Amino acid sequence: MANRALTEGPRPGDGYVQSFARGLEVIRSFSAAAPRQTLTEVASRTGLTRAGARRILLTLQALGYVHGDGKLFSLTPRILDLGFAYLSSMPIWNLAEPVMEALVEEVKESCSAAVLEGTDIVYVLRVPTRKIMSIGLGVGSRLPAYCTSMGRMLLAGLPDEDVARLLASTDLRACTRHTITDAAALLARVRQARRQGWCLVNQELEEGLVSMAAPVVNGAGQFVAALNISGQANRTTPRQMQELLLPPLLAAAAEVSRRVSRSPQ
Amino acid sequence: MANRALTEGPRPGDGYVQSFARGLEVIRSFSAAAPRQTLTEVASRTGLTRAGARRILLTLQALGYVHGDGKLFSLTPRILDLGFAYLSSMPIWNLAEPVMEALVEEVKESCSAAVLEGTDIVYVLRVPTRKIMSIGLGVGSRLPAYCTSMGRMLLAGLPDEDVARLLASTDLRACTRHTITDAAALLARVRQARRQGWCLVNQELEEGLVSMAAPVVNGAGQFVAALNISGQANRTTPRQMQELLLPPLLAAAAEVSRRVSRSPQ
Repeated sequence: MANRALTEGPRPGDGYVQSFARGLEVIRSFSAAAPRQTLTEVASRTGLTRAGARRILLTLQALGYVHGDGKLFSLTPRILDLGFAYLSSMPIWNLAEPVMEALVEEVKESCSAAVLEGTDIVYVLRVPTRKIMSIGLGVGSRLPAYCTSMGRMLLAGLPDEDVARLLASTDLRACTRHTITDAAALLARVRQARRQGWCLVNQELEEGLVSMAAPVVNGAGQFVAALNISGQANRTTPRQMQELLLPPLLAAAAEVSRRVSRSPQ
Repeated sequence: MANRALTEGPRPGDGYVQSFARGLEVIRSFSAAAPRQTLTEVASRTGLTRAGARRILLTLQALGYVHGDGKLFSLTPRILDLGFAYLSSMPIWNLAEPVMEALVEEVKESCSAAVLEGTDIVYVLRVPTRKIMSIGLGVGSRLPAYCTSMGRMLLAGLPDEDVARLLASTDLRACTRHTITDAAALLARVRQARRQGWCLVNQELEEGLVSMAAPVVNGAGQFVAALNISGQANRTTPRQMQELLLPPLLAAAAEVSRRVSRSPQ
């Protein structure tokens, strides 16, 4: 049964696929740029007809995921139950958080954890320093894998052919004048990260931003997440950063890996 | 059209309601206790038939929200896109975060923000102290409103009749020997919080935990969120906490309220 389930897939005419996909698209059409939308705006952003968008919005409203005031629709906090189901189903974050907090206390730089999702990394945990600056990257934020330290570290956990396939399906844009955009050169960097067990990305995502990542490895040897620390190139050179921050980062990632390997999950 | 939409609602036979509601239930069936589930487990947790659960799991898998290995299904990080749509559609958190970080720096206690969702509060932002302790309350966590300081503060933003209705539909359980479980006594506490503009809850959620909350008020005078600080009764008495922590908490909530009122949202 389970194997049949994987090979057969839903039929194209299956109502679940279409209505569910469209419903989730409607949820995703709300954003910081569009926190409240009219029916017409939702229809236009999702490519649905007004009648289709209306049925989904009313369904979401009946389920308590959307609030409507007669004209404008917005998401309610109930929507967080969906993402929270994912986060709470990953006991790794409870294991990782105290280790990351101790690391931030030690090095006075923010520490984040991310996982690979297609060609992107998705932030799953962030422990900021007390410095008053917002880097604007909360849980659920996405960044491309190819130009981030956690992305390259997570790619290093895959076989070369999978890395090449993912890079081939990525829009390799130059975010700064330092960004490596050649697939072969990127693959070489991913292999280097795999060999040395850590990764440093120097201002390829953003001018001035240097980031280092190390993998969280489970008992089966899989890279289940990456941890990173970032710093400013104008305060610390990449070499200083490597000397000062890499040893505690590697120790923290190893400790999280140990905890993950020991956990029943 | 918009008014019709609100009064008519989806018809009971409307395919969207059922399939969408069931799909979201399947997402919610994954938890820390059940991070990976078989088809049979999903069916049993959601009350769906095996065939129905299978169609939804395959749909979620086709959309990239679920990973299946032939036997066990688990959620993928893509699911965070749904909750993140909500968070990113609330610019208030970007406005609140630096204020909350400065507050935590000043008082050396964790600060959280929550909104009301039915009879619960839902955490939308949390700024922990660097103390190595995990309170296990991340974004998306829920707690009952009646026995939490943020809950009572947010209830205070509603008319008395709404508060009474919400309390009547809540299971008022004694979490500790201090928990107020009488609806009339709770309404009196909510009114007190409304009068004084802040709320202190002394060990009603958990023995030893004292929490204070203040409201974030928008330009229309609505309580859009609450901020809180908690402390341990064995380290600081509730009275000391009130003297030391309340003034900075009130100042922070007022500052966030000012920023929210000035923002175009």
